[in-house]
Amino acid sequence: MKKSSHRVHRSKKIRHSPPGTAPGAIVIPSDALELKIKSFSYNQNEYFEKEISGVAEIRSQLDTYPLNFHWFDIKGFGDKNFLEQLADCFNIHRLQMEDVVNVYQRPKAEEFKGHLFFVSRMVSEKQGVLINDQLSIFLGSNYVITIQDKYDDILEPVRERIRHGKGNMRKSGSDYLAYSLMDMAIDNFYPILERTGDRLDELQDELLTNPTRESLNRVLETKRDLILLRRTIWSERDKMNDILRSSFTEIADTTKVYFRDSYDHCIQLLDLIESYKEVTASLMDVYHSSVSFKLNQVMKVLTIISTIFIPLTFIVGLYGMNFSRVDPETGKFFPLNMPELYSPHGYIIVCGVMLLIVIGQIIFFYKKGWLTKG
Amino acid sequence: MKKSSHRVHRSKKIRHSPPGTAPGAIVIPSDALELKIKSFSYNQNEYFEKEISGVAEIRSQLDTYPLNFHWFDIKGFGDKNFLEQLADCFNIHRLQMEDVVNVYQRPKAEEFKGHLFFVSRMVSEKQGVLINDQLSIFLGSNYVITIQDKYDDILEPVRERIRHGKGNMRKSGSDYLAYSLMDMAIDNFYPILERTGDRLDELQDELLTNPTRESLNRVLETKRDLILLRRTIWSERDKMNDILRSSFTEIADTTKVYFRDSYDHCIQLLDLIESYKEVTASLMDVYHSSVSFKLNQVMKVLTIISTIFIPLTFIVGLYGMNFSRVDPETGKFFPLNMPELYSPHGYIIVCGVMLLIVIGQIIFFYKKGWLTKG
Amino acid sequence: MKKSSHRVHRSKKIRHSPPGTAPGAIVIPSDALELKIKSFSYNQNEYFEKEISGVAEIRSQLDTYPLNFHWFDIKGFGDKNFLEQLADCFNIHRLQMEDVVNVYQRPKAEEFKGHLFFVSRMVSEKQGVLINDQLSIFLGSNYVITIQDKYDDILEPVRERIRHGKGNMRKSGSDYLAYSLMDMAIDNFYPILERTGDRLDELQDELLTNPTRESLNRVLETKRDLILLRRTIWSERDKMNDILRSSFTEIADTTKVYFRDSYDHCIQLLDLIESYKEVTASLMDVYHSSVSFKLNQVMKVLTIISTIFIPLTFIVGLYGMNFSRVDPETGKFFPLNMPELYSPHGYIIVCGVMLLIVIGQIIFFYKKGWLTKG
Amino acid sequence: MKKSSHRVHRSKKIRHSPPGTAPGAIVIPSDALELKIKSFSYNQNEYFEKEISGVAEIRSQLDTYPLNFHWFDIKGFGDKNFLEQLADCFNIHRLQMEDVVNVYQRPKAEEFKGHLFFVSRMVSEKQGVLINDQLSIFLGSNYVITIQDKYDDILEPVRERIRHGKGNMRKSGSDYLAYSLMDMAIDNFYPILERTGDRLDELQDELLTNPTRESLNRVLETKRDLILLRRTIWSERDKMNDILRSSFTEIADTTKVYFRDSYDHCIQLLDLIESYKEVTASLMDVYHSSVSFKLNQVMKVLTIISTIFIPLTFIVGLYGMNFSRVDPETGKFFPLNMPELYSPHGYIIVCGVMLLIVIGQIIFFYKKGWLTKG
Amino acid sequence: MKKSSHRVHRSKKIRHSPPGTAPGAIVIPSDALELKIKSFSYNQNEYFEKEISGVAEIRSQLDTYPLNFHWFDIKGFGDKNFLEQLADCFNIHRLQMEDVVNVYQRPKAEEFKGHLFFVSRMVSEKQGVLINDQLSIFLGSNYVITIQDKYDDILEPVRERIRHGKGNMRKSGSDYLAYSLMDMAIDNFYPILERTGDRLDELQDELLTNPTRESLNRVLETKRDLILLRRTIWSERDKMNDILRSSFTEIADTTKVYFRDSYDHCIQLLDLIESYKEVTASLMDVYHSSVSFKLNQVMKVLTIISTIFIPLTFIVGLYGMNFSRVDPETGKFFPLNMPELYSPHGYIIVCGVMLLIVIGQIIFFYKKGWLTKG
Repeated sequence: MKKSSHRVHRSKKIRHSPPGTAPGAIVIPSDALELKIKSFSYNQNEYFEKEISGVAEIRSQLDTYPLNFHWFDIKGFGDKNFLEQLADCFNIHRLQMEDVVNVYQRPKAEEFKGHLFFVSRMVSEKQGVLINDQLSIFLGSNYVITIQDKYDDILEPVRERIRHGKGNMRKSGSDYLAYSLMDMAIDNFYPILERTGDRLDELQDELLTNPTRESLNRVLETKRDLILLRRTIWSERDKMNDILRSSFTEIADTTKVYFRDSYDHCIQLLDLIESYKEVTASLMDVYHSSVSFKLNQVMKVLTIISTIFIPLTFIVGLYGMNFSRVDPETGKFFPLNMPELYSPHGYIIVCGVMLLIVIGQIIFFYKKGWLTKG
Repeated sequence: MKKSSHRVHRSKKIRHSPPGTAPGAIVIPSDALELKIKSFSYNQNEYFEKEISGVAEIRSQLDTYPLNFHWFDIKGFGDKNFLEQLADCFNIHRLQMEDVVNVYQRPKAEEFKGHLFFVSRMVSEKQGVLINDQLSIFLGSNYVITIQDKYDDILEPVRERIRHGKGNMRKSGSDYLAYSLMDMAIDNFYPILERTGDRLDELQDELLTNPTRESLNRVLETKRDLILLRRTIWSERDKMNDILRSSFTEIADTTKVYFRDSYDHCIQLLDLIESYKEVTASLMDVYHSSVSFKLNQVMKVLTIISTIFIPLTFIVGLYGMNFSRVDPETGKFFPLNMPELYSPHGYIIVCGVMLLIVIGQIIFFYKKGWLTKG
Repeated sequence: MKKSSHRVHRSKKIRHSPPGTAPGAIVIPSDALELKIKSFSYNQNEYFEKEISGVAEIRSQLDTYPLNFHWFDIKGFGDKNFLEQLADCFNIHRLQMEDVVNVYQRPKAEEFKGHLFFVSRMVSEKQGVLINDQLSIFLGSNYVITIQDKYDDILEPVRERIRHGKGNMRKSGSDYLAYSLMDMAIDNFYPILERTGDRLDELQDELLTNPTRESLNRVLETKRDLILLRRTIWSERDKMNDILRSSFTEIADTTKVYFRDSYDHCIQLLDLIESYKEVTASLMDVYHSSVSFKLNQVMKVLTIISTIFIPLTFIVGLYGMNFSRVDPETGKFFPLNMPELYSPHGYIIVCGVMLLIVIGQIIFFYKKGWLTKG
Repeated sequence: MKKSSHRVHRSKKIRHSPPGTAPGAIVIPSDALELKIKSFSYNQNEYFEKEISGVAEIRSQLDTYPLNFHWFDIKGFGDKNFLEQLADCFNIHRLQMEDVVNVYQRPKAEEFKGHLFFVSRMVSEKQGVLINDQLSIFLGSNYVITIQDKYDDILEPVRERIRHGKGNMRKSGSDYLAYSLMDMAIDNFYPILERTGDRLDELQDELLTNPTRESLNRVLETKRDLILLRRTIWSERDKMNDILRSSFTEIADTTKVYFRDSYDHCIQLLDLIESYKEVTASLMDVYHSSVSFKLNQVMKVLTIISTIFIPLTFIVGLYGMNFSRVDPETGKFFPLNMPELYSPHGYIIVCGVMLLIVIGQIIFFYKKGWLTKG
Repeated sequence: MKKSSHRVHRSKKIRHSPPGTAPGAIVIPSDALELKIKSFSYNQNEYFEKEISGVAEIRSQLDTYPLNFHWFDIKGFGDKNFLEQLADCFNIHRLQMEDVVNVYQRPKAEEFKGHLFFVSRMVSEKQGVLINDQLSIFLGSNYVITIQDKYDDILEPVRERIRHGKGNMRKSGSDYLAYSLMDMAIDNFYPILERTGDRLDELQDELLTNPTRESLNRVLETKRDLILLRRTIWSERDKMNDILRSSFTEIADTTKVYFRDSYDHCIQLLDLIESYKEVTASLMDVYHSSVSFKLNQVMKVLTIISTIFIPLTFIVGLYGMNFSRVDPETGKFFPLNMPELYSPHGYIIVCGVMLLIVIGQIIFFYKKGWLTKG
């Protein structure tokens, strides 16, 4: 129960500037983490990586290595000044920077004065609860800036690919880096859905053998997770579609082939989610039919036992009546008052009659099919 | 109960001229409030605000400060003449003025002879009941006219931004003012939805611990509120889309970026509402499964107690029968009539048999899983 | 019950020529009313109105007053010849005339050789039953012809506006007259929906206090009415949309603004119907939860009374057994046969035990929450 | 029951060449009827009709009367050679001929080398079962070829119109003939739907008075019929739409007006089907609420009778206990053992108490509203 | 039960490279089968077929017979080198080769540098379980390459058609071969659906006579199979549509006619699946109404037996009371204590009264309609 009531509170997750705030105002949340910037700089042959601390250093690095590709990997919203300087430096619109800070944006792709702005959702699972973080990406001619509000993320494999020059990473431009980051976010849905599939299999086993409301609640939770995932991936799909249909000059045609692949992955994920949603729906059916099956069983046992014993109880009550054989005052004999009681085999005959009633009823129930299972 | 029956009457809210009225006729409702006009006039450097009383003053102010931006903030429909003069003065079509007065229009954007006409919905919550007011906006080259039928509204923060020159307000044109007013209306949905989310969390806790019909009714009410909100925001989204796709010359391209942001907010709100609707659907499931769970519990207790005692009651009835051991007339001994009653340990044996039956049944129920919870 | 079974028969309302009839054949229904023609002729300054009797008179009136606008208001299909002559005179296609006579056409707008052909639905309510009549309109350069199969209709306010020169009617052309007629039909949905809203409010009160199947049937009927209305208005909306997007030369741009208004009214009506449909859906929920709530109450009372008395009945049966304290033959004393019966306080102790059982059970039920309401 | 299980087998109706067959192979079903060809030849003035036997005769007739319009009305697939010769003679693609023979094609319209190929569905009802036959139509410049697999069809009225020169038939070209055939197929849905409407009215009466599963099954069957009809008419509508939007040179513009009419009929039929589907849905609701209403009634009777008698039975059991008034051994008097039994009015008092209990319970039930109907 | 829990695990079927893998990396599954290549080479006159072992042989065959059409039929993913060489040799993009190996791609059609890439799903049924294999097809100017991961497939009839020169196969180009392979995959859905139809007929019979949860589970399984099939065929349909609308130069117009036919087959299959889905939905209804019907029957029997015997049991209990006729101490006579017991015909009268009660109740139940079936 704890767990379930805990999960529910996720429904209030949107962070939004209070109504009345001027549009484009950057409102730093009170629990923002301290700023941390890492820069990656590479070309086909060389690579370096360092921690930097401000917009000035970013600018100088870009000027010093104009032919390299650069990734500025920014974490934490603690420094409002830095974000404003960054916006000024890279021509980022105030509304875009507001989107960066209000971390419940839907995935999207926008073009604005010399750069592209992407929002991706990084969904991971911690102790059975879905964590849905935002990754904001700015893609310029030879740089990528990513901004997120938490320190740990799922992008480490991309950093490793830069470090070790694996795959096409160092050979390709900054558009390929942006693609790799967004593709990483999409790839991460696969293990989450796999675990969801496992959980549904477990739940099905549970519901078939022992349908409890606890299991039902877990099915409902899984369904809600799936709805959340579907909505997120649906937007990712739209974003990929926008990129494919757009004429963004920042993205080369050779890279678009890769975005097409990500698009296909989104479709495949949506397919999988649809089939899982169908499974949850049929699990609900299984639960309800299990429960009503159990109720029917209970009713049947009650009915059989009641209907067998009710007539018997009547008969034994009948012969427990005290109708008097003689008038106590006059001593007159009443031969019609319960003569059965005074027959030498009365008891045995009555027991036999009751046995016949029981047998008759059992045959009746058997024919009705009430004694078989199901 | 009071509260719930109270809320229901909101379903009849549409105000519409009676059928047969000529199109474009302005029918002032009988409970219309008295007219109140406030004018705001500003440019980048200065600002003044005053109460005015008629179309003549509006016209003279526009002529006196041709380079300022003006906002005529009109409240109350009490003066039909004024509305007609206003329509004549600003080339407002009779049908538009009819829409202003019949305050249940959907959000929309229309162009007509030198001005744009917008309808926004200002939704607020008073004592748990949603209030859905109309804000009619006319946007000309250097003026904005807003008309509403109530005195208190949610636009105070925009007035404050004009007064204190916060944000872009005074630097930007009247299109930005119109945007700010409509954005204010949309922003106001966030706290309402937040409260809805809180209410759903409470309801979930209630339904899990103690499912009452009262809670169910509140879930249904919340669902209806969500449906109403969704429809309203859906139309706001359409309006924003119309503005973005249109070629209204009254709206500068730099302002359109802001409308794009409002459009995104609408999408985000719709997203949130969808997820809340899913929550209400699953709360209904929780309620129904709680109720049928309770019924099952009740049935099980009845069955267990009945089936345990029914055979016992039969047995004790059996030995309450009065079969006679002797023929009262002849004194003949009937050895087959209930010999158990005349055995020295008969009572104890019967008690023992009944105990065995009880134990047997408990074991049977335990194996059937009827003694465990759930 | 009468009323409900009566309403159902409306489901067979379509009138269609029998299959095999040649396309375009005009089949006059056997119960057609006698032909009645009224003509209205007006311009900005003058107006006259008279009853006429045939196509010849129509033609002569058009020739005599070529600068007037004319409305030929035809009621009743009793004269097939007349309809054929009319078709010949105004270039009406045979299929259009077939549509006029088969009065279950969907609202639509068609252009054909020099005139426009509109179908409108005039929905009214008589004693709680929806009446759905067809109004066929032909709009030419300076004339409007309307044809309907009943004498009484909802168009009287339009006739009054012509007679008294109210509104724009006499100043505007025949397109405005056609608009006014169709707008009248749409406006008439408002009071019908208002009554529907009132009925739903009543039903909600009924269902909350005393859920009967009769009320449920009325909810279902209301739902069907709403579905019918929605379909009709949906087609009206499509028709308005066709008119707005078309380039019909018969309709001036200034009149199109009015059609735009009608279009908005259709949208608003559809909105309202959607919200009423939601209300009916939640009323069904209310009904079902009320009924199952009542069943639960009944079950609980049964369970509580049964489980309280079943053990008591067993105990009193137990001490009604006739185990003999002495062997009737030998007189041997059986001290183990029901010694309780021979204890001086046996009765009181047994009564006390039963009281304890009752108290114990009441406490148990109270803790289970079965004694509280809901 | 027979009937219902009989109807189900219709779900396997598709005839398809076994997988692995080369595309375009004509597989004649084993139960194909013998070939029968009738030819109709007509122009505005004359008409003749004869039975013919092969492609050669078809060709010669076309050559002999080049200015006439010809209809070759082919029934039965018994002669594979004939079909192949026909395909060669009229440039019919092998895949089209495959469609002709595999008689479960959806309605469609295709153009191919000098002719149009239409598929229509002729739906009729025989003893309550829907028969869904295929009519394949080839339309050339001056000929129409129709092919079907059964001898009896619904096209007789069209043949009569040719024979007696009724309507436009003989004046118009072969496109009008093709239209007439397809229109005939669509017109034939009206009486079927009318019968469906009658059946739904009957079922509603049945379900309100006496809800049986048999009626429910018939509702479900009707629903399935409606689904089948809807799918068929939906495709017919698509076909009509394709014809209207296409630029098929074989169809004159004057004929297109008629196709537009058929299109409207399809829409109207779909409308009607939707409303019938709504009716079936609400009939299901009626059934379920009737059944649960009946169960509630049964439960209430059980509860009332049980709860009235259970306490009484306890009381009479109580005074059936055998607590002894004297110690049989010592003769000691036990004044506390059931003194009620030895009071002179004990019996009457107990009977009175029981009467009071009954009255009290009846009042309680009456107040709870359990004694009223509904 | 075994079988059902076995089938469930199919829900986890997607094979996907682990997140973090570089895009386009070919990850061979650990249980990949050994590589097997068969080549078919043919033209209108001649044909040969041989096993080959590597890319070099493929290349040499293409060079040796430049005017033949070639089909390289590759099975098993055991040799990663081979796949990479193949990709290099035929300009296959890395992402395409990744799709080949990750065998859960949706059907699709893509163009890339001189060849088309198709994915088809080959669905077959083994022991009641659906097997869903992937067939990857590369179509070049004069060659077709197919790759699959299993040895046995459903393509044997196509191989036979090549071997025996049946149909158009040898006369037509490689595009027709690619079509034949994809058409084979689609044709194979027919027998599967036919079996599904048979199974649904069986299930309906079962559910009407004896509704068990086992049958319900099989209905749910069938529904899930149908959902899976629908999704697969839906994608096949999209693929066919893409091919038809595209301007792929590799596919001749004469072949497109055949693809159009496949497209129609997809539509027809989807139609069939929709109707089967409706059947499963109504089977669920049948199940639930059967179950609740059974429960009602059980309840009715319980009620009838209980209500008949409860009053009787009360009466016999009544006359089992021991109210004393005399005061044991004083010997005083109590004439009011149960005088019925001392009436000469008391017993017979009581039996008669009980008989009347039984008859009265039976009449009551009969009138209520509880003794009739249904």
